[in-house]
Order: sequence, then C-alpha cells, then structure tokens
Amino acid sequence: MPPPGARTWSITVGGMRTVLVIGIGAGDPDHLTLQAVDALRRAGVFFVIDKGGDKDDLLALRTEILRRHRPDGDFRLVPATDPPRDRGELADADYRDVVVDWQDRRAALYRTMLTDELPDGATGAFLVWGDPSLYDGTLRLLDRVLDGMPDRADWRVESIAGISSVAALAAAHRLILNRVGRPVLITTGRRIEGGLPDDADDVVVMLDGRTAFATLPPEQSKDIHIYWGAYLGTSYELLVSGPLDEVCDEIVRVREDARGRRGWIMDTYLLRRGEGQR
Amino acid sequence: MPPPGARTWSITVGGMRTVLVIGIGAGDPDHLTLQAVDALRRAGVFFVIDKGGDKDDLLALRTEILRRHRPDGDFRLVPATDPPRDRGELADADYRDVVVDWQDRRAALYRTMLTDELPDGATGAFLVWGDPSLYDGTLRLLDRVLDGMPDRADWRVESIAGISSVAALAAAHRLILNRVGRPVLITTGRRIEGGLPDDADDVVVMLDGRTAFATLPPEQSKDIHIYWGAYLGTSYELLVSGPLDEVCDEIVRVREDARGRRGWIMDTYLLRRGEGQR
Repeated sequence: MPPPGARTWSITVGGMRTVLVIGIGAGDPDHLTLQAVDALRRAGVFFVIDKGGDKDDLLALRTEILRRHRPDGDFRLVPATDPPRDRGELADADYRDVVVDWQDRRAALYRTMLTDELPDGATGAFLVWGDPSLYDGTLRLLDRVLDGMPDRADWRVESIAGISSVAALAAAHRLILNRVGRPVLITTGRRIEGGLPDDADDVVVMLDGRTAFATLPPEQSKDIHIYWGAYLGTSYELLVSGPLDEVCDEIVRVREDARGRRGWIMDTYLLRRGEGQR
Repeated sequence: MPPPGARTWSITVGGMRTVLVIGIGAGDPDHLTLQAVDALRRAGVFFVIDKGGDKDDLLALRTEILRRHRPDGDFRLVPATDPPRDRGELADADYRDVVVDWQDRRAALYRTMLTDELPDGATGAFLVWGDPSLYDGTLRLLDRVLDGMPDRADWRVESIAGISSVAALAAAHRLILNRVGRPVLITTGRRIEGGLPDDADDVVVMLDGRTAFATLPPEQSKDIHIYWGAYLGTSYELLVSGPLDEVCDEIVRVREDARGRRGWIMDTYLLRRGEGQR
C-alpha cells in the first residue's frame, strides 16, 4: 500500500491476475453467500487441492457447488496435491516448525501452479471450507507465494467471507457463543489438552483430532456444558450436547463410529463453563 | 427438551409457529447466504426492531433485502420499539444487571408481540445484523420469551448463520484471524480498556463505543498492529490498518468524523501482538 499522500500510477499490460479465496461454508451448499456465488461466476480457473485420504464427501460438495452455480462448464479445474506433512506428537515449538516448513514446500508448488495455469488478466479461485479467515492457510500461503514474485503488483487477492464451522455449530444448537458482555475464545484441541485457561468460560474448539474435551480435569469438566457438532450443515450432521461429564463418553463413541464409517470427520464444539449455560 | 429416554407426544392443532432468526451479514446485501434467502421467502411476518436514533442506513439495508428477495410483497411488517436502555459508566456487575433488567422488559414486549401477531402455523422472522451467534441478543430473548409460555412445545426457533462483522473485517483486510496453531479471542471494548489480557495475542474487539484501543498502555501498543473497519461491507466502508501507535490517532479522528456525518457507527477491529503480523 502506498504511503498516505503518495500518487500511484498503475500501468497494466495484459491485465491483472486475480486470485479469489472463496469461503464455501461448513458443508451445506446453501451456506454460500450471494457474494460467493458471484465470485464463483467470475473465475475461469479453479484450483482444487487434493489433501489425500478419503475425503470424497468434501470433493462431492465442491463438485455440487460448481454444478449448481457454473452450469456453463466454461472453466478449467487445476488439481494440486499438497506435499505430505509430518504429523505426530510434537511440542508446540516443533509443531510450528513443521507447519512452517510444510508451508514453504507448498509455496514452491503453488508458485509454479499459479504462474503456469493463470494467464494474464485471468481470474482463478480457491474454494475453502468455512471462512478463509479461520484456521485456513490459503491466504497466508498466497501472501508467501506472491511476495516472492517479481510481478507482485500485477496480482490481486480477494477474500470472500464464508459461514465458518463455528457459526454453523452455533446455528445448529441455536446458541449465542458469548454471554452478555463476555468474551469468546476460539482455539485448538491441542491448546486445551489437560485444562481450559482460567479466564476462558466460553471456548470454541476447532482442529481437535484427539478429543481434547475428554482430557479436562474432573474439577473443570463437572462444571462444563458441551455443544458438539460434526459434519455441520450436511445431511449426515451429528449433534450432541449436555453436561460434559455425562455426554463425554457418548461423544467419543459417536465420533469414532462416524469416522470409521465415513473415513474422515470434521468436528467443532463449544465448552461453556458456569451458570447461564444457554 | 425431554429427559433422555422420555417418550413425547406432540399433538398439534393449527400447526407449529416458527420463528426464524436470520443473520443478514454485516452490511453488504450480498452477504446473505442462499439459506438466508430461502428463509426470507418462508416468512409471512417480519418483526422489525426500531432501536431508536438515526440508524436510517440500517433500516435501508433491511428494506433493500426485502425488496430484492420478497418482490411479491406478500408479508406483514410488525414494528417493535425496544424499551429504553440505561447507559453510562457502570462497573461490570452493574452493567450485567442493567442488561438483564432491560432484557426482562423486552421479553414482556416480545411475548405480547409474538402471541398477537404470529398466527398458528405461521412463520415469522427477525433479521439480525451479522450472525445471530455473536453479540446479538435475539436468540437469548426468544428463549426467555418462549420458556414462559404454556404452549412452548408449539413454538419452534431456527437460527440461520450469517457473515459476522468479524468475518467481514477479516475479508476486507484479507486477514487470517489466527496465527498457526494459535487462538483468537473475541471480546468487547469494555474488556480491553487499560490493557490486553497477557495470554491474548490476536484479539478481535466488538461493541467498542469508546475507542478502547486508544487506552492500551504504551508498552503494549508499541508491539501491536491494528486492523480496523467500520460500516463493513457497505459502499461507505472505512478501513485503516498499521502499527497501533502510528495509526491510533487517525482512527479516532476518522471514526469521530464518520459518526458525526452518518449519525451512527459500527466498527470492529483486530489487535495483533508480536511478530508475524500478517
């Protein structure tokens, strides 16, 4: 961005390349906003990330969305396979290193893909789950990729807000996430393992592959209500809520069954501590 | 809700009454989801809350939305004026008391309105700013209103997720709210007056009528980047970002000018502490 008062000239030969990062919601094709539908219609190229594994359901939603909103078929699908990512039990600092290195390898891959596949003046799009601003790395990756390019000024990125799984969870349980005048913490499963922070009474947990809600100490969990949801917005959505110490085992079981059956699971939950639990 | 294992019979004469709480986004009519558009088309009655004051812009958006999505005009508008609310400088506990008492008075008003204006079998709707799950009291109020009714079982409430001002802020600045593997705190202006919590490095602030970002101690603000937005999603959206100590005065000035000109302001911002400020 130019400093205040600066005058800028933009001379465009062949035109800007635009990359749209479109939030498509948490699983319901009707979570799309009108703005997202419009953005889908502007794109000539869709970059489709294959995360590997058995996420056919996810691919099916993307296909359904394109079928409904781009019946013209006048676009190209460019598949990309993410580089493999080290996983496992890591301390926080190591975890960040692993993620950062993986992001570097992705950046190289995406730089090539964008340069090769998006012509001058064209518009490409990434369809991302939920909202691009919450626990999705696409915008960060694009910053990294584009900042290394000599023609950076000819690339434009737009972020299109979507219904996050947090909003979808709340709607499914008809919840207000905050209590009157109070804060809400959005965090990861890893961060609440072993206990909630002292000053956090309304905590939304995402990216929890290891049922961290089951690791809270008994003196915490007896005072906590959980509102849990998986596959939010889909026809196979699962919802469980209740006092954590009463429904904890049920959620662990339901979650394990569902993951075995579908081959993947995405779940999110609110932990609400203390009185006034609606 | 019946206790687990209970058997329930529902005998409906005349049919359920449905109340939709529809998130209409932060200011852009294209923030509406397809699900919200569908919900708008199901409603026969719209309850329109007049908060008083000069919020003509807000009323205009609601009118525009109904004009676009209900050109049939086959619905009733039922206006309601919220009871006046005590404001002023109050300690946290008093603040909660005032809000709770005000909610009681609203509940009485809404009970009458719903009972009188929504016939058996009909569907009514409240259009709420942003997302019903974030700093909006409509769902809480409906719980309170309906729980006092003898025919509670004949009323159904649905929450339709919307683009919150948090998501709109992030999209406008092309931000990811969380850093890799780290949490995000959503809180109120009141709660950060005088300083951010020690363990919160990415803080989204809503409901800040008093520019609390300008009250942070210098040792905090020198290390903070602010991403500020007002009237998000509208044609008169305002955005400012930069190191807090450099842009703080500018935001205070821009905000005051805009509020004077339009008669109201709604703003939201992210405070981001430490390295990696994109």
